[in-house]
Amino acid sequence: MPVYPDPLERLVSELSRFAGIGRKTAQQLAFQILAMSDEEAGGLADAIVTAKKELRHCSVCGNLTDLDPCAICGDLARDVNMICVVESPKDVIAIEKMREYKGLYHVLHGVIAPMSGIGPEDINIESLIIRLRESDSVAEVILATNPNIEGEATAMYLARLIKPAGIRVTRIAYGVPIGGDIEYTDGVTLAKAIEGRREL
Amino acid sequence: MPVYPDPLERLVSELSRFAGIGRKTAQQLAFQILAMSDEEAGGLADAIVTAKKELRHCSVCGNLTDLDPCAICGDLARDVNMICVVESPKDVIAIEKMREYKGLYHVLHGVIAPMSGIGPEDINIESLIIRLRESDSVAEVILATNPNIEGEATAMYLARLIKPAGIRVTRIAYGVPIGGDIEYTDGVTLAKAIEGRREL
Repeated sequence: MPVYPDPLERLVSELSRFAGIGRKTAQQLAFQILAMSDEEAGGLADAIVTAKKELRHCSVCGNLTDLDPCAICGDLARDVNMICVVESPKDVIAIEKMREYKGLYHVLHGVIAPMSGIGPEDINIESLIIRLRESDSVAEVILATNPNIEGEATAMYLARLIKPAGIRVTRIAYGVPIGGDIEYTDGVTLAKAIEGRREL
Repeated sequence: MPVYPDPLERLVSELSRFAGIGRKTAQQLAFQILAMSDEEAGGLADAIVTAKKELRHCSVCGNLTDLDPCAICGDLARDVNMICVVESPKDVIAIEKMREYKGLYHVLHGVIAPMSGIGPEDINIESLIIRLRESDSVAEVILATNPNIEGEATAMYLARLIKPAGIRVTRIAYGVPIGGDIEYTDGVTLAKAIEGRREL
């Protein structure tokens, strides 16, 4: 005899599909759902379906959006001279949260990773090049791909592609993270932090 | 400007309603949902709605079920001489998982907790008493409420209520958990473990 009644078993296995959620946590979540009112559970189910249905990629920058162009591309107050290139919409959210950057974005939806068979044509690079070619306002492209091998390689590739057009290309700074411990910082980061030192 | 597009914001806040899931985890789950196929996301949403709709309490034992009576109460192979009283359907699942216990259950859906204003009439006790009165097969009631103040008090209350009917009433054993460390076991548990020692 199965341990769970069928609909509970189905809910638990659906929930345990999430990375980082095992059967035990899935069971706890399932019981929380059963403790919700019908409206709350329906609201959750509807939010899932609606998000899947309404969210798409902005045709300009590739960011996740329910409008096209997205709220950032369509915002007249943003600085159109700057485009920050990131790997994923999550990176846009992280940068937007600090409320400092006022320029535009371009989301690659991945990085060049030859080991995984992902070349420049598999990520959102072509639309960036077309965007730069058609715009006469962009003065700087900030490369904010992740500071790992693939992110670096992608940044290098983009720099070589964009610089000839006379656009300034910059890379985010490497260094010791604020609140971090020098003692526990890896050697490569420390070397980069010393190399990138600034006059006070 | 909000950081998330509306449907994503809604999904993230719906997901962060779960106890133990903060905004950050909710965002990760939301992105996992967006990465699912439409069928997968729809399947998850449907599992939530279906579980809410189809799961109810068994009219006999109070366990969570999509059938009535539940699969355990309806299973002719179970030992009808024994009823194990537990606080919640999760406890039934935990006991069923070990595949050792072959008797029936009774789910209280709570414990007597005077500090929270929960009296014997607020939990599923009356149906247990009626069930015992109407059955002539039950020979033993195992009290498996949690080993804390409320669980103890509820067990004591039930023992006093059931014993006069000439039914054997037992309480699950207290002691050091298997795989536990005597060194790190609290004093009350250790005292119970020594008090409950058995001849080898």
